[in-house]
Amino acid sequence: MLTFVGFGLYDERSITVEGKEALQAADRAFAEFYTSQLVGTDHQRLEYYLGTDLEVLDRETVEQDPERVLAAAEEEDVVFATAGDTMVSTTHVDLRLRARERGIHTRVVHGTTAQTAASSLTGLQNYRFGKATTLPFEAAHGADGVPDSVVETIEANRERDLHTLVYLDIKVDDPHWEGEEEFMTADRAADLLREPLGDPLGVVVARAGSATPVVEADRLSELADDDFGGPLHLLVVPGDLHDMERDALRELAGAPEDAL
Amino acid sequence: MLTFVGFGLYDERSITVEGKEALQAADRAFAEFYTSQLVGTDHQRLEYYLGTDLEVLDRETVEQDPERVLAAAEEEDVVFATAGDTMVSTTHVDLRLRARERGIHTRVVHGTTAQTAASSLTGLQNYRFGKATTLPFEAAHGADGVPDSVVETIEANRERDLHTLVYLDIKVDDPHWEGEEEFMTADRAADLLREPLGDPLGVVVARAGSATPVVEADRLSELADDDFGGPLHLLVVPGDLHDMERDALRELAGAPEDAL
Repeated sequence: MLTFVGFGLYDERSITVEGKEALQAADRAFAEFYTSQLVGTDHQRLEYYLGTDLEVLDRETVEQDPERVLAAAEEEDVVFATAGDTMVSTTHVDLRLRARERGIHTRVVHGTTAQTAASSLTGLQNYRFGKATTLPFEAAHGADGVPDSVVETIEANRERDLHTLVYLDIKVDDPHWEGEEEFMTADRAADLLREPLGDPLGVVVARAGSATPVVEADRLSELADDDFGGPLHLLVVPGDLHDMERDALRELAGAPEDAL
Repeated sequence: MLTFVGFGLYDERSITVEGKEALQAADRAFAEFYTSQLVGTDHQRLEYYLGTDLEVLDRETVEQDPERVLAAAEEEDVVFATAGDTMVSTTHVDLRLRARERGIHTRVVHGTTAQTAASSLTGLQNYRFGKATTLPFEAAHGADGVPDSVVETIEANRERDLHTLVYLDIKVDDPHWEGEEEFMTADRAADLLREPLGDPLGVVVARAGSATPVVEADRLSELADDDFGGPLHLLVVPGDLHDMERDALRELAGAPEDAL
């Protein structure tokens, strides 16, 4: 049996009770931390708190050699865990399909996600978000500035009065990555996006899922000059705002009047 | 202090460890179950399992008389908990803003949501979903059939090759509701939507967050004749499918070839 467990957003307490119990009951537990990270904890604390051994797999193993996980799951109760919800990554959907092809029973224990936090912490209503996008490091997409597809997604959402969640690039355990930074910051993202988008309102969420997340709204040019502390960061580019959303951005995100 | 806690999707084990600890540490805990429900448990089991008393509030109290919660939160550590993530409802964003106006410290402990499950259980990629919509009972929107806005949202997403998550109406504890059913089923939703949409592929998710969720994909006309068991149900109307998504719908949702 192969159970996919989402660790949730931030630390060892972000997991659901069901997920924790699945890990404790498993004969063997694998985890990967390259698609996302639990920045509020570390491997040792996680093992101690969850009361289980975690075999951390690198990207290459999961993507090129899933046999290790599948062979174990044929024999025993195996958990495969990741930050957020496990099925956000296509590789993990692929792993689930391979397992089922081999007759292995699979199950998903959901985790809290950036998508939920982006709406919940900002007061922007979840049903008013359009398609999400990911802003890559410049060196990662092989060109200066911002890929056209990112700008097009945000513009198409704004035309329909919808908000856009912009996921920020994470380059952890990527053998092809030669850049110095592992996490794109929201201020860097605001700086990259302000010109192509005409400097609209943006909302930064830093360390969602922690006890003290930072939520800040202002024009992208202002956000570009700020420092939001450690990862993970998210950026939301809102579309048209409803009254309650405007109130929420003033109160929860300190949005100045001239940016609303 | 006022902490908003999401119970998550299904039963008493869907909550995060952090949420459970917040409930246990609270001086007083309120909950509401009219915006969504934990259909896999009941009030008594929830109190027993979480080790806390839960004062369940009806819709009228939360919407018309939030004073009860706010006054308590001025004096003590108070939790306000709901199924899913608490901030999905505008009323709760309003409650948070009122609390902050009165100088009450607020905090959000996220829960797992239908949005996450809709993508995670189906294999449809989360960044390929457009704006979501809610399909109301016919009697609730005062007209036959489907509101134009629902059809327009789905069509606009499909034009951009995006999937649409269709939330299905819940009428629990609504004094204005005279209908017999409390939860719209996915088969009813498929029946309502098949004609206006031209009978496209749909994906039903029933009892997301439970150990045995049902996931089924077929043309809406076929789904309309099925019975997916007890609540809660969701319906996804996919846009254009990527190869991996098509594989996932075949394998995880039994999609027949002629519907893909």
